[in-house]
Order: sequence, then C-alpha cells, then structure tokens
Amino acid sequence: MKIGFIGLGVMGKPMCRNLIKAGYSLIVYNRSQAAVEELAAEGAEKAHSAADLASHCDVVITMLPDSPDVKAVILGGAGVLEGAKPGTLIIDMSSIAPAASREVAIACKAKGVRMLDAPVSGGEPKAIDGTLTIMVGGDKADFDAAKEAILLKMGGSAVYCGEIGAGNTTKLANQIIVAANIAACAEAFTLAKKAGVAPETVLDAIKGGLAGSAVMEAKVPMMIAGSYDPGFRINLHIKDLANAVDTAHAFGAPLQVAPLVMEMLQWLNANSCGALDHSAIYRFYEFLAGGVLGEA
Amino acid sequence: MKIGFIGLGVMGKPMCRNLIKAGYSLIVYNRSQAAVEELAAEGAEKAHSAADLASHCDVVITMLPDSPDVKAVILGGAGVLEGAKPGTLIIDMSSIAPAASREVAIACKAKGVRMLDAPVSGGEPKAIDGTLTIMVGGDKADFDAAKEAILLKMGGSAVYCGEIGAGNTTKLANQIIVAANIAACAEAFTLAKKAGVAPETVLDAIKGGLAGSAVMEAKVPMMIAGSYDPGFRINLHIKDLANAVDTAHAFGAPLQVAPLVMEMLQWLNANSCGALDHSAIYRFYEFLAGGVLGEA
Repeated sequence: MKIGFIGLGVMGKPMCRNLIKAGYSLIVYNRSQAAVEELAAEGAEKAHSAADLASHCDVVITMLPDSPDVKAVILGGAGVLEGAKPGTLIIDMSSIAPAASREVAIACKAKGVRMLDAPVSGGEPKAIDGTLTIMVGGDKADFDAAKEAILLKMGGSAVYCGEIGAGNTTKLANQIIVAANIAACAEAFTLAKKAGVAPETVLDAIKGGLAGSAVMEAKVPMMIAGSYDPGFRINLHIKDLANAVDTAHAFGAPLQVAPLVMEMLQWLNANSCGALDHSAIYRFYEFLAGGVLGEA
Repeated sequence: MKIGFIGLGVMGKPMCRNLIKAGYSLIVYNRSQAAVEELAAEGAEKAHSAADLASHCDVVITMLPDSPDVKAVILGGAGVLEGAKPGTLIIDMSSIAPAASREVAIACKAKGVRMLDAPVSGGEPKAIDGTLTIMVGGDKADFDAAKEAILLKMGGSAVYCGEIGAGNTTKLANQIIVAANIAACAEAFTLAKKAGVAPETVLDAIKGGLAGSAVMEAKVPMMIAGSYDPGFRINLHIKDLANAVDTAHAFGAPLQVAPLVMEMLQWLNANSCGALDHSAIYRFYEFLAGGVLGEA
C-alpha cells in the first residue's frame, strides 16, 4: 500500500522514515522543496501538489503546524480533496483545534473521504524513535484499521479517544497540563533559589515524591543549565493554548491556569524567545525575580 | 537513647510507631490526651508538658500543624526550651514558614540547643510505611548525626538542603508544584469532559507522556471517582501556599500560579470542603463548568 505524507518538518521527516522502515512506499509533498528532496533520496516519490499526492494513494497523512494549514492543504485549491478518491483515509496528525478537525472531516465526508484526527505527543526524539503517544478521534473502524498497520509504526501507543476531534481535545488537555507543570516548576525553583536553596538540591529532594513528573525530569535540568534548545517551541505551545482557550469557551469550561501561562509564553515570544524550548518559562520567572533576560 | 515526640496527629502517630519499631524508647506529649494514651499502650512514656518531655531526652521531635504551634510548643511557657539541656537536638518535622524555623533556631541557639527543620512529604501512607521524603535544613553535622540513626527510621530518603529553613523552603517548592499540577489536571480533565472525551480515556492516553506525573497517577483517579478522603487536606495546603506567598514576598520572587490555586482552595474551604483531599480542586472546576457543588 502506498501512503501519502504531507508536512515534512521536524516531526514529519522522522515519521516518514519510520514508515519507510516499516516497508511502505511513500509519496511526499511539502511547501519547501529541500525536505522533499531529502526524503526522495531515501526512496520516497515526489508529488507536484497535495491533490496529485492524494490521487496516488489510499491513505494520506498530514503533519502541519495549525488549523489554517490543515484547512488549506486538505480543502484548498490543488488540495487533498481535489485529488482524493472516495474511500481515501486522511490521518491528520497535526495538533489543531478540535473544531477545525470536525469542520474538515465534514467536508471530507461529503466527498466520501474518511478522516481521523491523530495528534501526537513526545516531540522530535520520540518521532525519531517511533515511540510517539498518539491520541485518535474518528470512526472506531477507521482507527482499528489504521492502528497496528500504520499508527504504531510511528508511535509507542495509539489510544482511541472518541469521535472526530477527540484526539485533539485530548492533546489540548495534555498541553494544558504540560504548560502548567513547567510554569509551576519554574515558579517553585525560582522561589527556592532566591531563598537560598540550589535548584539541584530541590530537584534531588522532591523528584521522587508527589511533586515528581515527566516535566520535572525532562525540563528542570534544562532550566538549571539555562539551555533551551527545543524540544517543543514556545510559539507552538502558544498555538496549543490558544486552541485550548477557544475550545474551553465553545464548551463552557472556563480555564484559569492555562491563560495565565499563555501570557507568560506570549511575553517570552515578544522578547525574542519564541523559538526556544517551553522550559524557558524559567526566564520569565528569573526576570520577575530581578534577573536579566538572557540571550535568545 | 530516648527520643521525645510532640504532636501525635495523623502523621506523628505512625512516625512514633516506626521509631518504637526501630528500638527507641519514646516519651510523648500531645495537646489531646487520647493519642498519648494510645501510644502509651504501645510502650511510650507519657510527659506532663513539653518542658517535662525535653528534660528527659537528648532528641526532641516536633510534628505540628503550622508556625504558631511550633513557636508555642518550643518557645512558649512550659515549652521545650524551658526543659531542654544544652546540647539537646530538636528536629522539627512540621511544615512551617522557613522564617519561623530560623526564628525558633536562633532562640534555641541562645540556650545551647541545636535544631534541624525537617519537613516531610508523602502523607499518611508513607508515614505508616516509613518511606517519607524528608527535606532537611540546619548544621550539616547535626544532619549527618541524625540521618541514618533517626530520620531514615521514618523516611525513605532524607536530603540535606542547606542551613536552617532550607528544609521548609524545599517543602514549599514541593507544595507549589503539587498544588499547580492538581489544578492543571482538574482544569484539563474538566475541559476534555465538557468537550465530550471521558476523563478515563484522557488519563489512559496521556499518562505515559510528558504530561504524566505522580499527581496524575494518584489524584486524577480520585477526581474521576469523586472520592476525596484525605490524603492531604485542603486547609493544610492553604497553609502551605500562604507560607509560600509570604516567603516569596520576603525574598523578592513573585509567584503567579500558586496564589491563583490558593484562591481556588480558599473557595473550597469557604464551601465546606476544607477537610477534603486537595484533589477536590476538581470540584471548583466542575462548579465553574456548570456542575453542582457536591456534598462535602
């Protein structure tokens, strides 16, 4: 079976490589051509457009930055829906607004095209290892067909979350918790440091207890080192939290912590830190506590 | 060696039992007499006052609710300092303000009495198991002398954090992170539920990734079950966050997330939920999202 893959960024490229490794023929399309040539050198076919790509395969995977990109690539001119045969399955692995997933899926259904929303968590290292966490919404039968054959070639787990949009809703929950926990660690470690206790000592003392988390293990050492190579970029986390706020308003579930942390990230973005890892929230607290904003 | 133990509450009682199990003779004192009789039946001696207790031993452990209790029991009339011989070591295992630890330690030093602040994390279950996490401030030599012989009879780990007050500073950092992470989980799971994804599904999908934490494992199932037996009570967490805010102001490290979560806990306390486990922050979000505040 041939799989089409659109969106060859930091995440898309290693995901493609894992599909090639699993034995699939791949046809790829991307806005910038360099990544296309790179994958072509590794055995992928090149498509002229998203529509051209879709006309050559039964499964189309998209991995794009945000809702407008997904709408343009699937619904727009020379987009996936222009080329897709009825029965095609689109697996959108982008992290976008759940409402956008639903909107795109409705347009797809009108053309007999099926769609899953299947955003991932784990970042570039887990994309490379093929151990992403995949959260999936859509028809259960489509999930069952795609799980072992396709999704678990890129991920360590793939969990069915419910109807279309449920994957992205679950991803938003994930992103709220990650953002808040990074901010909480930054806040707590800044307080301890100002009060005279070294962050390394606090980490050692508390990481094994109820305060312990994957965020503490992965991100606090980056704060201590002042080393913010992404990882997951601040401006992408702003996008996710903005989608969380919109979704919360639509469903009547007011947020408290997420908008506060989003403002910290906005401040960092306004101070040339948007491309840093989200653990750089620590810089916001250092600045508040009278430190100097470091170089981006 | 005889150890004096003051404060036989939910935490103090099992901690005493672990010291007895380790072979120590114990002399105990407590405001309410029932707990004293209980421990006496298990082999402990009874003291008439904190001063009386201190006059009979070389090490005095205190496990009390907050800073004013510790000041009263150590510095007050018929208190520890009235009875203590020079060279006595006080190990205050209460979670109090770091500034209070320093104040009490200075008064102790004037009488030749040494003091460690050694707050714990882990709650009743780990107090019973003797696997508490212990964060310690004071003279390193006093810590070294107490660590294996005394602290690790009650705890699974005891980490030296720095001079007097550093144990409580570390504990405050711990409590900020725990409170914020509980709020973040409550916020995220409420959003997901309102948007149509069951909390159990979200938990299953995200717990293995970057959002995963000890809080998620321990507290989200309580939210899902609506079962809030403490655990760690809301009104004690309010006390800790109030101490965090005071400490942050004193050291010029403004907080952001902790005061917001403290207000949620205050709201719960004002609505008869102060004695519930802190995971009941979920009720605050349920209320915001249009649910009904459940029975306390």
